[in-house]
Amino acid sequence: MKIENIDVSSYPNSEKIYVGGTLFPEIKVGMRRIKLYPTVKIEDGRRVEYPNAPVTVYDTSGVYTDPAFAHDVNAGIPRLREAWVEQRGDTDLLCDITSEYGRARASMAELDAIRFPLRHRPRRAKEGRRITQMAYARQGIITAEMEYVAIRENLNNAELGIESYITPEFVRQEIAAGRAIIPANPNHPEAEPMIIGRNFAVKLNTNIGNSALSSGIEEEVAKAVWSCYWGGDTLMDLSTGDNIHETREWIIRNCPVPVGTVPIYQALEKVNGDVKKLTWELYRDTLIEQAEQGVDYFTIHAGALREHADLIGERLTGCVSRGGSIMVEWCVLHNEQSFLYTHFDEICEILNKYDVAVSLGDGMRPGSTHDANDRSQFLELDVLGELTAKAWEHDVQVLIEGPGHVPMHKIKENMDRQMAVCHEAPFYTLGPLTTDIAPGYDHITSAIGAAIISRLGTAMICYVTPKEHLSLPTLEDVREGVIAYKIAAHAADLAKGFPGASVRDDALSKARYDFRWKDQFNLSLDPEKARRFYLESRRDAPDADDRFCTMCGPNFCAMRISQNTAEKCNQ
Amino acid sequence: MKIENIDVSSYPNSEKIYVGGTLFPEIKVGMRRIKLYPTVKIEDGRRVEYPNAPVTVYDTSGVYTDPAFAHDVNAGIPRLREAWVEQRGDTDLLCDITSEYGRARASMAELDAIRFPLRHRPRRAKEGRRITQMAYARQGIITAEMEYVAIRENLNNAELGIESYITPEFVRQEIAAGRAIIPANPNHPEAEPMIIGRNFAVKLNTNIGNSALSSGIEEEVAKAVWSCYWGGDTLMDLSTGDNIHETREWIIRNCPVPVGTVPIYQALEKVNGDVKKLTWELYRDTLIEQAEQGVDYFTIHAGALREHADLIGERLTGCVSRGGSIMVEWCVLHNEQSFLYTHFDEICEILNKYDVAVSLGDGMRPGSTHDANDRSQFLELDVLGELTAKAWEHDVQVLIEGPGHVPMHKIKENMDRQMAVCHEAPFYTLGPLTTDIAPGYDHITSAIGAAIISRLGTAMICYVTPKEHLSLPTLEDVREGVIAYKIAAHAADLAKGFPGASVRDDALSKARYDFRWKDQFNLSLDPEKARRFYLESRRDAPDADDRFCTMCGPNFCAMRISQNTAEKCNQ
Repeated sequence: MKIENIDVSSYPNSEKIYVGGTLFPEIKVGMRRIKLYPTVKIEDGRRVEYPNAPVTVYDTSGVYTDPAFAHDVNAGIPRLREAWVEQRGDTDLLCDITSEYGRARASMAELDAIRFPLRHRPRRAKEGRRITQMAYARQGIITAEMEYVAIRENLNNAELGIESYITPEFVRQEIAAGRAIIPANPNHPEAEPMIIGRNFAVKLNTNIGNSALSSGIEEEVAKAVWSCYWGGDTLMDLSTGDNIHETREWIIRNCPVPVGTVPIYQALEKVNGDVKKLTWELYRDTLIEQAEQGVDYFTIHAGALREHADLIGERLTGCVSRGGSIMVEWCVLHNEQSFLYTHFDEICEILNKYDVAVSLGDGMRPGSTHDANDRSQFLELDVLGELTAKAWEHDVQVLIEGPGHVPMHKIKENMDRQMAVCHEAPFYTLGPLTTDIAPGYDHITSAIGAAIISRLGTAMICYVTPKEHLSLPTLEDVREGVIAYKIAAHAADLAKGFPGASVRDDALSKARYDFRWKDQFNLSLDPEKARRFYLESRRDAPDADDRFCTMCGPNFCAMRISQNTAEKCNQ
Repeated sequence: MKIENIDVSSYPNSEKIYVGGTLFPEIKVGMRRIKLYPTVKIEDGRRVEYPNAPVTVYDTSGVYTDPAFAHDVNAGIPRLREAWVEQRGDTDLLCDITSEYGRARASMAELDAIRFPLRHRPRRAKEGRRITQMAYARQGIITAEMEYVAIRENLNNAELGIESYITPEFVRQEIAAGRAIIPANPNHPEAEPMIIGRNFAVKLNTNIGNSALSSGIEEEVAKAVWSCYWGGDTLMDLSTGDNIHETREWIIRNCPVPVGTVPIYQALEKVNGDVKKLTWELYRDTLIEQAEQGVDYFTIHAGALREHADLIGERLTGCVSRGGSIMVEWCVLHNEQSFLYTHFDEICEILNKYDVAVSLGDGMRPGSTHDANDRSQFLELDVLGELTAKAWEHDVQVLIEGPGHVPMHKIKENMDRQMAVCHEAPFYTLGPLTTDIAPGYDHITSAIGAAIISRLGTAMICYVTPKEHLSLPTLEDVREGVIAYKIAAHAADLAKGFPGASVRDDALSKARYDFRWKDQFNLSLDPEKARRFYLESRRDAPDADDRFCTMCGPNFCAMRISQNTAEKCNQ
């Protein structure tokens, strides 16, 4: 599968490996193993090779990089969790979808041409049963998903004798405490389980989505695969154009990572963008529609209240969250409290039937460094804390969304306050951007903030592309954004002392010192770009493993000089 | 002047302004004033305009963006500080250059074709006089340079009533204490004074330089201008190819910012790369040669000692500093202590005659996160502290160079230790890179570290381009590197509460909220790119000030919705 001339079916010199479960022998966790070349030394005039152990890295690309898999977009990808869910025996396979809108769309013959060809019956909790990962965890049950993520978070540790605290039981405890979530709607069994929590590797979310000028189905699926290939851990479909119900189906059926949405967007599309016409009933139906398609988490701006309308005027940049601005506008137009807030218990009752996690949106996130940590923001955060407790009463898994634009010195206050008032529910932040003055480079202004806040405990960061504030991102922008955020997440993992995090750094640095150029490229986050940059100035010898690079040239290579020195000292 | 199709003679909607001195009425400090469009509101059906005050920004582009200036590369740029130095009456204008190498080059007729056409006689301290900014500061003298930088560090403060602690007397105190430096060789009077110290705006250095495959003179000058245009505060010429003496002359004569070099590079070229042949005498002559050309600061790896040879083997990536590896190699080859260390007093005696600042190189900076904060590094740092005290005895201004590769959790230890053992001399760091796994993106891995360490007190950061570790940067890479570092520096200024730092952020954010797109571009660090990105998806209406962007489209603009809400609440 080629996208933008990059083969997204494989990484150079890597193999897909699967690690089996112990509690659940049927699970097999996909990882990528990067094979390394030996270190070559000349000893007593002879060439001696010292092998280098392969490095296993976290792999979000799913079956797309499994050579045994042939992708057919019309069939979707394997439904790996279907049997696990089935075996638990606490869900019903419904005869038909239950949302009004879903049914109406299903009956429209003119949509047949753009509809995903297979129909999967939706699955829902049996009456009286609680099927969320949190519900299981609280009952002391370790699920297959929990063992899966425990294996996934331990990469090279067994081989290297690194002792990790991450066991299936630890995963269960974290989920039971609300400190971590596994977004895992039974209706999206294609997704490989992953965990979001501050005691696990920092995760990153990417956003895709069509707009009024809809792109084709294949293109949307390609975007999703592209994002997973580069390292996106979850994917938000923020489509606002036509046929978003059908587009979403194609994405979910072909997506190996959890999918999130902001249901209010589609609800607003259903009333042609007229905020006043939004109703709880319409929104409720949208939740069911999307839950039955398999959305794994919903962003719900239930903390943006009527009270915020009066506070917006205090700000330099008002309200910059789409969902938040819609809800506050609705409150003003109706002179009523937000229906997301007043109906929050009913929302949770829907969510827990499908194990859809709630990501409590920060409708009042600051849109400028000026507005960071202000009254609007912290008032909402308090409300999100209250709603967290409520969601947990329903065993609904919770994420808390965070800012936004925050200068460096205000980041810690944000993190500390979120931990305190939201009872340690995982924080999921957009950036934050640490300055406002660099449109065109906001993947960098925000990678700085994302690295800092992740180190302090944020569990997942939502990427920002170079086009933020300016335009819709291209595929190339998506790649730049994902890599910037992989850097932020990994830098935080290193700083947190996450078990095994430094293995890849050390292997790459050793390859660099050994002049094993190919290993240096293959171990990097973006092997294609690293190799291309290197070759830009070395077209003459593209495969040479020269003992210098063009940065310093042959006479000035510190690493070579220093190796000579070290050898002399050892003689 | 056009470079890469960008007009580096002007910034959009900006004017060059000059602010005069009080103590020294003859000085005029160049700044850039960005003019803004009015905010337009519809009130009672009428269009009302509210003017927006212009924003003044720090300007490193020198005369190149002065419309009254016509550049002639053969004449160089105006020698603005010449009269100031002259007036102090403590320097001699030498009849001829005094370095052997410089004289030899001057007498070679075959170099006439590539030589800078004007010859300026070098200036040196009169016998027994101390002419460094530190010497003046310690005597209680405020120089023109000190008032210049005090004005330069206060941008919008007077207009906005912001009280800044930065006065000429404060500058003097900081320099006297060694906490800040003004690199200002009298032989580089073309450079506009700037200050490096943790109580001032964070500065950034860029590196240029030809290599064995030398680029043309015009190209080197273009690189220097390009770097200054985007925001480089100082420029290091790291040339290692042919004719570097002559190339340097062209650069200095046309460079409006202080220039630094690493003299050991040229010394090594003089002995054809044979480390063993390096001598103190050769190095000494190189210092004089470069000082008389006008180099403002020298990186000197005098802390890389013979003792380090045995420590290199402990590391994953040995010694990755070119200067450091050369000196340790020299020590091993000669079984002697480094001549930079043993002759350090003599070095200082040369430097203080020309007010060349010493930037004590970190030859043992870690080349991987694995090696950060290890014995080699901290042993050297202790030596740098000892040398700092020695340099100050000679009134030589000091910078301390810092790492390198450092994971986030080890950055603070670096900064704190530098402050403690180097007596608060300004820290000048390369990055640091916070992870090793992203070659091709090391401007980002390092911008994260640079922002963090600057906030903690680093005074100047040395940029890293996307090509770091892989290849020599192109002009486009230089631009990416400079902007990434402007972001890091500015994010740190905001976090430190630097007086007036938030003015530009707030103006840009207000422009964004007002949908004043052109102002948003013009206020940004890279107006050309911001505008280009915006237009990529709006080719139909390139100059429209639409009240939305293509990211969210017309129905989903949170800012517009929130403005409507705020207006309703005010009615």
